[in-house]
Amino acid sequence: MQLLEERINKDGIVKEGNVLKVDSFLNHQMDIELYNEIGKEFRRLFPDKSINKILTIEASGIGIACVTAQYFGCPVVFAKKAQSVNIDGEVYSTSIESFTHKRTYNVIVSKKFLSPDDNVLIIDDFLANGCALLGLIDIVKGAGASIAGAGIVIEKGFQKGGDLVRSKGIRVESLAIVDSMSVDGGCIFRH
Amino acid sequence: MQLLEERINKDGIVKEGNVLKVDSFLNHQMDIELYNEIGKEFRRLFPDKSINKILTIEASGIGIACVTAQYFGCPVVFAKKAQSVNIDGEVYSTSIESFTHKRTYNVIVSKKFLSPDDNVLIIDDFLANGCALLGLIDIVKGAGASIAGAGIVIEKGFQKGGDLVRSKGIRVESLAIVDSMSVDGGCIFRH
Repeated sequence: MQLLEERINKDGIVKEGNVLKVDSFLNHQMDIELYNEIGKEFRRLFPDKSINKILTIEASGIGIACVTAQYFGCPVVFAKKAQSVNIDGEVYSTSIESFTHKRTYNVIVSKKFLSPDDNVLIIDDFLANGCALLGLIDIVKGAGASIAGAGIVIEKGFQKGGDLVRSKGIRVESLAIVDSMSVDGGCIFRH
Repeated sequence: MQLLEERINKDGIVKEGNVLKVDSFLNHQMDIELYNEIGKEFRRLFPDKSINKILTIEASGIGIACVTAQYFGCPVVFAKKAQSVNIDGEVYSTSIESFTHKRTYNVIVSKKFLSPDDNVLIIDDFLANGCALLGLIDIVKGAGASIAGAGIVIEKGFQKGGDLVRSKGIRVESLAIVDSMSVDGGCIFRH
């Protein structure tokens, strides 16, 4: 998605350790006009009319998912990072390892909001090692729901997450795939 | 807001301990059509054209803020719950006591995204004891920015937060104010 790649080049900041900061428009301050273009593009990539639910994970996926949902005419459910390890039987749960925060989260979705009748599009801002996305897939499968695919804003193509999820037969559409990046040279995108 | 009150009566669940669960449409599963009506109503209540930024707090404020921002033509910034107490000088920070989770959070906003030039509308899903809202006000004031007001989806009118914030001269507009509630009788709204 050219608009997004241009924005990453203009306002993204590459830091040591393969860190790409896009907090001025994507995941701290949020450019809602850009979000709308992202939402339209996800709809174009996933025209399937049977998609009836969008699933994301707190916190930075929520805004993108909500604006995107307007183009799908469906509700959003967000997976919550649970405070407690005592998960009762009323939720689907999985554990997700966060490399950024160097800890493991329990992530939950109430059983009321996912069922075998659902055809779910998963939306998230980043795909890197794939832990968050695999966790969300685990939750959808646990509910017996169908997975229409995953819409990702930025994929770090040099990490293994994208290949790993695609190898499981899940359709992953990333609006920008960064093949390499450097502090001085910025991002090189896959086309 | 009649549509919202009707929805709370239809799908909200009152539990012991003054708990109002609205997770089927507001803060776990999110009804984006309702969010759009909420956003339009916030625009009607805050027509001030100088509002140039919406501030909210993760996680459940983000979706409402993003959909609402479309009616204001401005970006959203969300305050993050910090993992660490080591806050560097590049952020505005405050601490917020959470009664729900029985702990105190450090909440941060990057200094890049709030300045004295900003006229900020604060958006959140709930106002009860006011701790979260007071924390966000503290952050806006720390940045030297102006506060246009606070738009709240549901205010628990029987708790002290609304009075406390209004007594500081901050305009608070709540789309539904619950004056009392009970497990058997549901919610009584203020009009």
